[in-house]
Amino acid sequence: MSDNIFQRNLDRNPANFQPQTPLAFLGWAAQVYPDRVAAIHGARRITYGQMMARCRRLAGALARRGVGPGDAVSVMAANTPELLEAHFGVPLAGAVLNALNTRLDARAIAFILDHAESKLLIADREFAPVIRDALAQIDRKLPIVDIDDPELDPAAAEPLLGDIDYEAFLDTGDADFPLRPPEDEWQAISLNYTSGTTGNPKGVVYHHRGAYATAMGGALVSRLDRHSKYLWTLPMFHCNGWSYPWSVTAVAGTHVCLRRIDPALIFPMIRDHGVTHMCGAPIVLNMLIHAPDTVKVAFPQQVEIFTGGAAPPSAVIEGMEAMGFRVTHLYGLTESYGPSTFCAWQDDWDDLAPAARAQRMSRAGVRYPSVFDQTVMDPTTMEPVPADGATIGEIMLRGNTIMKGYLKNPGATQDAFRGGWFHTGDLAVLHPDGYVEVKDRSKDVIISGGENVSSLEVEECLYRHPDVLEAAVVAKPDDKWGETPCAFVTLKDGAGGRIDGDAIIAYCRDNLAHYKCPRHVVFGPLPKTSTGKIQKFLLRDRAREDA
Amino acid sequence: MSDNIFQRNLDRNPANFQPQTPLAFLGWAAQVYPDRVAAIHGARRITYGQMMARCRRLAGALARRGVGPGDAVSVMAANTPELLEAHFGVPLAGAVLNALNTRLDARAIAFILDHAESKLLIADREFAPVIRDALAQIDRKLPIVDIDDPELDPAAAEPLLGDIDYEAFLDTGDADFPLRPPEDEWQAISLNYTSGTTGNPKGVVYHHRGAYATAMGGALVSRLDRHSKYLWTLPMFHCNGWSYPWSVTAVAGTHVCLRRIDPALIFPMIRDHGVTHMCGAPIVLNMLIHAPDTVKVAFPQQVEIFTGGAAPPSAVIEGMEAMGFRVTHLYGLTESYGPSTFCAWQDDWDDLAPAARAQRMSRAGVRYPSVFDQTVMDPTTMEPVPADGATIGEIMLRGNTIMKGYLKNPGATQDAFRGGWFHTGDLAVLHPDGYVEVKDRSKDVIISGGENVSSLEVEECLYRHPDVLEAAVVAKPDDKWGETPCAFVTLKDGAGGRIDGDAIIAYCRDNLAHYKCPRHVVFGPLPKTSTGKIQKFLLRDRAREDA
Repeated sequence: MSDNIFQRNLDRNPANFQPQTPLAFLGWAAQVYPDRVAAIHGARRITYGQMMARCRRLAGALARRGVGPGDAVSVMAANTPELLEAHFGVPLAGAVLNALNTRLDARAIAFILDHAESKLLIADREFAPVIRDALAQIDRKLPIVDIDDPELDPAAAEPLLGDIDYEAFLDTGDADFPLRPPEDEWQAISLNYTSGTTGNPKGVVYHHRGAYATAMGGALVSRLDRHSKYLWTLPMFHCNGWSYPWSVTAVAGTHVCLRRIDPALIFPMIRDHGVTHMCGAPIVLNMLIHAPDTVKVAFPQQVEIFTGGAAPPSAVIEGMEAMGFRVTHLYGLTESYGPSTFCAWQDDWDDLAPAARAQRMSRAGVRYPSVFDQTVMDPTTMEPVPADGATIGEIMLRGNTIMKGYLKNPGATQDAFRGGWFHTGDLAVLHPDGYVEVKDRSKDVIISGGENVSSLEVEECLYRHPDVLEAAVVAKPDDKWGETPCAFVTLKDGAGGRIDGDAIIAYCRDNLAHYKCPRHVVFGPLPKTSTGKIQKFLLRDRAREDA
Repeated sequence: MSDNIFQRNLDRNPANFQPQTPLAFLGWAAQVYPDRVAAIHGARRITYGQMMARCRRLAGALARRGVGPGDAVSVMAANTPELLEAHFGVPLAGAVLNALNTRLDARAIAFILDHAESKLLIADREFAPVIRDALAQIDRKLPIVDIDDPELDPAAAEPLLGDIDYEAFLDTGDADFPLRPPEDEWQAISLNYTSGTTGNPKGVVYHHRGAYATAMGGALVSRLDRHSKYLWTLPMFHCNGWSYPWSVTAVAGTHVCLRRIDPALIFPMIRDHGVTHMCGAPIVLNMLIHAPDTVKVAFPQQVEIFTGGAAPPSAVIEGMEAMGFRVTHLYGLTESYGPSTFCAWQDDWDDLAPAARAQRMSRAGVRYPSVFDQTVMDPTTMEPVPADGATIGEIMLRGNTIMKGYLKNPGATQDAFRGGWFHTGDLAVLHPDGYVEVKDRSKDVIISGGENVSSLEVEECLYRHPDVLEAAVVAKPDDKWGETPCAFVTLKDGAGGRIDGDAIIAYCRDNLAHYKCPRHVVFGPLPKTSTGKIQKFLLRDRAREDA
């Protein structure tokens, strides 16, 4: 573009250009609503004014230890105020927050601490054993700060590991640590490792600009405001809690902390704190629905609950609505800062019958307003598929809420971004109304007799069976067909006596094309990741062993 | 900063970096809610799908005429769908929207068309006479597109001026015009001229990044969602309607268009369309309050009304609340994309007595979450004033929602940005709670006997007088004191007979330090700009003439 009058002498300067960063939200909340409660944890109340001071101390304490730009700080913690504060205090020091999945084993933790070149580790004492084992596997000494949370069940309290307690560590920092934004909004803010269903986990790098945009988009989509009370039923280590540490702060709402997912805790907290919003994997919804009636405390408000991963079946949606929740289905990946896509409600769905509504609501949906573009493409031709609800392609995303790339992995980064789009690896159709419906992970497709079978479609059929609590379908090697579908099923309490594998297969044959039906059914609990994702790679191994 | 692992092989690419632009909001709304009503105008309904197609046609028609990046397109229009569409269609062509203040005279319009080097003018036939006179004053031929709005009162319809009608012009464009973002988010999106109370108006240049951020911030602060109905009582030519053309679209809300401010139209529209939000100058609030009871149609919902400029007096707040409005006071300037600052409500104000509440609510307040920083400084030392509610300094702003600068005016641009802050020219105090209270425009301070007198403080005193409808105070040259305050007062209906200038002065002496009291009082209507700002420069001239 040639020079024109709108480009001449109209350059950036500190008055009209500043890096976009979610750190600004905490500064704003602390300035405007210093006395509002930022975080509730058990009997503790931390105001925004206090949280700001604590985050500045954290940044100051890190800086004093020499931690700064380019350094990762790993945190192994439950959803407590310390991890919330780390979302601000660590990047305020210029460093990169690496929240660890607390369900990982020592080997995986050691891999991450090593790969991220972490300079310091903040760890809750509940997780001391796995941390101790992980540290034994890496060949350098890492400073440890202990989180000694009074809300931790004393029975779960392990010996402290570190050099200093978190509160004492804060005391070494200055509450006047300068509120500096990053030098560049492209600077890394956090590092989240993929669950690594195959091979080593990959380190997904987020930047300040993307975190800012995701937080704004999330606040708009979930209609947060300063009266919002957000209950932390989604792990904050999962894609930085889908950016809600930043979104909720952007409106000066209240974070209600929670160490563990337990309906006996959750229902009374919803009532007592007037919770308005929460997020969670499908397993969380299942736990709430199947909780004993004695713990199902009623509450007067409507609670928005956002759930990612598998589509919520109609029975789950209805069950949740009956208890006072409104369910919104989301889709996204670690690489897209969590949700990129939500099943935006259309007013004419109000009048649909429950099954038709659930069908609409189960789709992944449309992009967040903060996502630049989303489409479904043939990954070889990079041509969009027709919006016919039938042609399968790969979901592609682009925009400012996509990762910088994978840490120290230029090959995987280039591969993910080939053709100028982020390749999600998820197979989907595009409906005429522009809503995306996920059909499967690329690698979860079962090829039986040359036909593609969507494991998701078979699972949806299984979920409609009245005795099925949970189901997962994977490929089982087969001499004749190449692969055949193998179903792993958890039955509802008491159903074990009245149903067997043949009955399940017969049910599928009544409801699916026969080549799509499972030929083997295995009953029992399903292995899951800490975020509630069913670990299909383990099931695939089991299906292979039984072959 | 030295190279580190978080900077290596993690560069920008089209998948993870795209320019931020409010054009994306229209693309989003049209994709997700194509059948929702984007705009209501009289009997017309334009859905988001239709608006998208119309804006693409507009962009295509402009491009076909050779209008593109670096070119200004001027629009002289009421708050009709055409001006709303221009907020998207013009920048979609890469061009710069220059919405003209419809109250300007031909000389000022000619100055702007010339200074902006406008390539094309879209004009509503109501304003044909002034446009014709303006065109006669510039020495080049400008293509004109006529807006021939069926909602225009036939008595106000002037002869068409242009080569083509707006609808016919759209037909020359392609509904598939590519949805391209700007090459760079720093690219200009619009050009708004200051009201020019002294000398020629200055051309304030906005960019895509800033418009995006302001729109997001505005949507958050005003809690817009897809059920929001925004009534256009603020001129869209005023700082691009405080970015609401973009904010409302970002949530797929509905724009309710309105050609002119008339309570007899506004009240029924609020009821019939379920209006939830509106903005306006203080004069709009005054008109609504003082409307005859016969036009004050009741409505069931609460309407959020945002008002800039002078602080709403307590009687106005109470009057508006009684009718079902909730008033929020804003502060900002053309240079800050309209509002930078809002009087954020604090819950403990709920319990205050009306006068104390009005005092809190009358302050300019705190920065928008989208504004990076705001403070009050001594402009010579650039040191912040103490937050004591007493020390006067100048409001300074910085962040991504500050203009690129003044068009073709590097001197004024540098002056406005000196020291890395935008100098607002407004004098204020900073309260201990961080709220800013405007005391005066720098140039409105009256220096009497060496003492600074805030004209605003004197005006506030006058407004508390039960017979005063409106008041403005300016400096009058005085041989003895240098300057003295001179009050221009509009009395309420029927008060003329029972009160005179001496009574007004006596009232002030009972309520103000004597050196602050007006020595002259002039009764009559006050001259105002189209946006309801009292034109103090005219009053200053009159005060001088009377000296």
